Amino acid sequence: MTVKVAVAGASGYAGGELLRLLLTHPEVEIGVLTAASSAGTPLGQHQPHLVPLADRVLRETSAETLAGHGVVFLALPHGHSGEIAAQLGPDVLVVDLGADHRLRDAADWQRWYGGEHAGTWPYGLPELPGAREALAGTKRIAVPGCFPTGGSLALAPALAAGLVRPEVSVVAVTGTSGAGRSLKPHLLGSEVMGSASAYGVGGTHRHTPEFAQNLSAVAGERVTVSFTPVLAPMPRGILTTASAPLASEVDTAAVRAVYEKAYADEPFVQVLPEGSWPVTSATLGSNNVQLQLTVDESAGRLVVVSAIDNLTKGTAGGAVQSMNVALGLPETTGLPTVGVAP
Amino acid sequence: MTVKVAVAGASGYAGGELLRLLLTHPEVEIGVLTAASSAGTPLGQHQPHLVPLADRVLRETSAETLAGHGVVFLALPHGHSGEIAAQLGPDVLVVDLGADHRLRDAADWQRWYGGEHAGTWPYGLPELPGAREALAGTKRIAVPGCFPTGGSLALAPALAAGLVRPEVSVVAVTGTSGAGRSLKPHLLGSEVMGSASAYGVGGTHRHTPEFAQNLSAVAGERVTVSFTPVLAPMPRGILTTASAPLASEVDTAAVRAVYEKAYADEPFVQVLPEGSWPVTSATLGSNNVQLQLTVDESAGRLVVVSAIDNLTKGTAGGAVQSMNVALGLPETTGLPTVGVAP
Amino acid sequence: MTVKVAVAGASGYAGGELLRLLLTHPEVEIGVLTAASSAGTPLGQHQPHLVPLADRVLRETSAETLAGHGVVFLALPHGHSGEIAAQLGPDVLVVDLGADHRLRDAADWQRWYGGEHAGTWPYGLPELPGAREALAGTKRIAVPGCFPTGGSLALAPALAAGLVRPEVSVVAVTGTSGAGRSLKPHLLGSEVMGSASAYGVGGTHRHTPEFAQNLSAVAGERVTVSFTPVLAPMPRGILTTASAPLASEVDTAAVRAVYEKAYADEPFVQVLPEGSWPVTSATLGSNNVQLQLTVDESAGRLVVVSAIDNLTKGTAGGAVQSMNVALGLPETTGLPTVGVAP
Amino acid sequence: MTVKVAVAGASGYAGGELLRLLLTHPEVEIGVLTAASSAGTPLGQHQPHLVPLADRVLRETSAETLAGHGVVFLALPHGHSGEIAAQLGPDVLVVDLGADHRLRDAADWQRWYGGEHAGTWPYGLPELPGAREALAGTKRIAVPGCFPTGGSLALAPALAAGLVRPEVSVVAVTGTSGAGRSLKPHLLGSEVMGSASAYGVGGTHRHTPEFAQNLSAVAGERVTVSFTPVLAPMPRGILTTASAPLASEVDTAAVRAVYEKAYADEPFVQVLPEGSWPVTSATLGSNNVQLQLTVDESAGRLVVVSAIDNLTKGTAGGAVQSMNVALGLPETTGLPTVGVAP
Repeated sequence: MTVKVAVAGASGYAGGELLRLLLTHPEVEIGVLTAASSAGTPLGQHQPHLVPLADRVLRETSAETLAGHGVVFLALPHGHSGEIAAQLGPDVLVVDLGADHRLRDAADWQRWYGGEHAGTWPYGLPELPGAREALAGTKRIAVPGCFPTGGSLALAPALAAGLVRPEVSVVAVTGTSGAGRSLKPHLLGSEVMGSASAYGVGGTHRHTPEFAQNLSAVAGERVTVSFTPVLAPMPRGILTTASAPLASEVDTAAVRAVYEKAYADEPFVQVLPEGSWPVTSATLGSNNVQLQLTVDESAGRLVVVSAIDNLTKGTAGGAVQSMNVALGLPETTGLPTVGVAP
Repeated sequence: MTVKVAVAGASGYAGGELLRLLLTHPEVEIGVLTAASSAGTPLGQHQPHLVPLADRVLRETSAETLAGHGVVFLALPHGHSGEIAAQLGPDVLVVDLGADHRLRDAADWQRWYGGEHAGTWPYGLPELPGAREALAGTKRIAVPGCFPTGGSLALAPALAAGLVRPEVSVVAVTGTSGAGRSLKPHLLGSEVMGSASAYGVGGTHRHTPEFAQNLSAVAGERVTVSFTPVLAPMPRGILTTASAPLASEVDTAAVRAVYEKAYADEPFVQVLPEGSWPVTSATLGSNNVQLQLTVDESAGRLVVVSAIDNLTKGTAGGAVQSMNVALGLPETTGLPTVGVAP
Repeated sequence: MTVKVAVAGASGYAGGELLRLLLTHPEVEIGVLTAASSAGTPLGQHQPHLVPLADRVLRETSAETLAGHGVVFLALPHGHSGEIAAQLGPDVLVVDLGADHRLRDAADWQRWYGGEHAGTWPYGLPELPGAREALAGTKRIAVPGCFPTGGSLALAPALAAGLVRPEVSVVAVTGTSGAGRSLKPHLLGSEVMGSASAYGVGGTHRHTPEFAQNLSAVAGERVTVSFTPVLAPMPRGILTTASAPLASEVDTAAVRAVYEKAYADEPFVQVLPEGSWPVTSATLGSNNVQLQLTVDESAGRLVVVSAIDNLTKGTAGGAVQSMNVALGLPETTGLPTVGVAP
Repeated sequence: MTVKVAVAGASGYAGGELLRLLLTHPEVEIGVLTAASSAGTPLGQHQPHLVPLADRVLRETSAETLAGHGVVFLALPHGHSGEIAAQLGPDVLVVDLGADHRLRDAADWQRWYGGEHAGTWPYGLPELPGAREALAGTKRIAVPGCFPTGGSLALAPALAAGLVRPEVSVVAVTGTSGAGRSLKPHLLGSEVMGSASAYGVGGTHRHTPEFAQNLSAVAGERVTVSFTPVLAPMPRGILTTASAPLASEVDTAAVRAVYEKAYADEPFVQVLPEGSWPVTSATLGSNNVQLQLTVDESAGRLVVVSAIDNLTKGTAGGAVQSMNVALGLPETTGLPTVGVAP
């Protein structure tokens, strides 16, 4: 089986990462690549690392250019996927890497992003309870945000097992590529290097409702999320420190057992050996999630740390993984489980 | 007035930063510089940035070499200050940049560092309630750890005012110089660059009891601290995200008012204008602490973010500031309030 | 003596570094600060590290706003200084940090920058032969480019002494702040970090004619310059590797003697001890130039390596140093000779 | 066909990169992994990114543990390969990533490394004239140094065609992983980040004779090499700026034509489109070499810039490529031609 895929938004970081993965995916043929202001230029100008595609000329993003593919990936700015998706046929698998179809509650969309909600699609985080079933055979996939990917997997087993109270705190240290190729002063190398900064503090980051949606579903009750992203001087990677008050007395070994069981069959999630703590570089370029946890008895909290590559598992790798599920392919097809380090 | 100062541990990062500051301190004459394995070599080999001192030859660290100075700074590994300090006369101002004299409870020392406790000295964080009074005229100063400096100042006003419950969470992103010039694989540039990692998670970092000591004193009750340090790819800087559950309904403006009042007369603490969040690069090389806060109503928590330079305000700058207080000098003497950016 | 200074272009990196230095300059009072699109906003929004000036509101750049100052610094994009300078009185000391007044040959200006040449001003690199004399008492100063600063000082003594042939090669590794706060994709942190790249290769960088002008004047004959700048993932610093074929047989010791003599009285230039090679971090934030050299007998070349901070000695520090000369102040006034490291 | 391979030195950076590549090589089965001081520990402790091999226990490096494999990779410190290789049978393909078997002249070995020369093996840079033929069917391969890989390919076509004089200058900016996992102060993250430094200047770096050997063979006459490596704050990547005086009048287009022809059939070498200059991040994790060149008419020099990943094409990828040639496999088997960016 070979499926022809198109990538809308091929000149950006998410689009580039998608293409990096698709180039070695054995069941995929890369079709049309589109862009906005870069349409008409060769991909090599924007993604010099994608050598085999260097001469491919970018086309305009439209229903016409994207027609004739079995899978269409939309790596577009938030709010741009809905309209184009509506024009793609119901038999095409549309994978939206943007936020447009993630939230279940239209009011949430309105509050956090503004404008009309484009609808809710099956959520592309197969490791969450029930997600794999919803993705199987689907023609529409909403790829999770990078922060909710790393953070939801860090907390889901504990919440599902009732080990912690539904009041979680998440501080996630992220590389700069999560912000995309945006020309903003605070993303310049001169400003970023040698410096850490917080933004979207106090529940004002748009990934907050997505966190709450995921974790509340797992917990079966409303979970509050105090979420702070921190920008660190690295291109890729998210290191998430997630914690919550213990619901009852439990020790580290017992919690480890719950996590090991929860992720025993997950090909991309590693609960690290005792004493090893996650390092984002170990996951770079891979679809892996590395986890470690401990019970802080003095503070009465469970602390879980996870590492992912925001562009791979956090965006493009997660998208390909969910595509595999939707198409009935082995879930790991074309996805690296080995990082690039140092 | 000119006081002659000696620096023990002049070849390390803390010692180097001390000398950088002391070189422009108008009331200080730099005397003997000592080191361990580097004794006998010129300082320029280890600190090429300290140009005016390049030819100074490092001496052995001993009571003899350190004799004859009005102030002795001890920038030694933990556990090494007590013995040498005991041999320095009671009229010498001894400023310990190590942990030996920070903890009030000998049992805490035993548990976290091991061995006999060297005793408790006035704590060199003048911005904490009562600290300035204890430092005035003292001959012994325990310089705080870098994490407790950034984190205690982030939370003290809220705890003192009873705005939050005594259950705080602190995630502090730090540059690598906080670990000193230690030859450990995880501190190599190849491992550090492009990567973030957690360590000392779950209340196992040695700064945890110091945090608890500071915050409990301020709150007037036992404060639990869930503390996670994160190593980020930058030489200097600590960005602290501190949060705690609100004790009662209060909005951001009300909390800001409390912080602005608490720090109104502090020359080194800036509560940033609304909408501005701390960036560690803005504090680099300065003795400043930059703060911002918000109330997350949905999660019911206060979130405070602070930025410091771990080597300046977090170590050597804090030491000089406390020395100034002890000697009766204007507190800002010789201390930069302007950072080096970008 | 106190002179009132204005800074045009205060929201950029060069302007910010100027203000950092001027804030501790004992003979200076900081007057009007201007900007282009940021006019009307407080400086703290753009330069959060300049704490004492945080509330200063930026004004428009015009002859009117800049009137009434003894010194006016122009930190403007190339081509913008000429017009404004022409409107400032002959008694005002105008220090141009841009390229407008550096080149002696109007045809060179036309070829490299385009448009009409604004004229040639005394060149602000006091360490070059004759430069100090030209700067004394002048009312107009052209501050050198950052690359010609590091590279000219690396080669001048050898060329002046006729030790090398007038065919030099220069490869200069630079931090990103040299490009200013420009919103260009290749300057984004995501692109810069973890990567090195060449640009302006083959004598196409605009600093090439300035190099040739400086070195030809020193050598007394036409010097050809093969210049390649390399962008490295660091905010500041230039490490220059400069080499040229030996004119006759000479060993390292003999060349060292020439350099040591040439720079013996220079307060900001350090010929490092044998065996020590320059490290840019040792110069960060200082006005220093650190040099080392060796004769490669096998290749028949002299190789000189220099380190500077591109924003300090390479831009703003050089500007203040030249201002000091022009005003008759001690040349080192207000200029750090100690770097900020690590 | 499946060949069983052993890796000696699996806990280092070169060994880790080898394993990263071998894990996806379709004709290879990974056998014994050995180390020195880390023997007895699981690989996951040292290489957390090599998830599928995390539980493999490292063994001692000896002829016994390495027996029974079709291919043995030696990723050992210089001077350690000769003895172990002599004990491996003549039917085993031994691939030495160290320097022991690179130099043809025993006197060169003696001078640059000391001790007895272990002998000269076929040189694993297939893109050099004649190299592929020497590698076909061989049982012994000397993998080139990382600097000579990037630099030799930058200059070989011009020297072979007689376009330049045999006096080349090379300045190569390298990431830190080239120095291996060595615990040296100048390799600490705190020292490396934010800083560039030169070392091994003036033809004193051990790769200099290897450069001269390669280029002299290509040119058919003795080539002198002025080589300066520069350490930059990035984990991987080498950006080489190589230049030489033109032998006769020739323009950029003519030189491009020579290079394009020379590398037309090379799967891993890309002469970039006009106007595009190499960026090391575009090659990261790939076996690619990206090149651009220009004739600087004013200076009379050809300037060529190349980018590689020092650990991939510069070490482990080059080793696998040469293994493929020796085993008669398609040369690109198991080797990425797509980089990981940003």
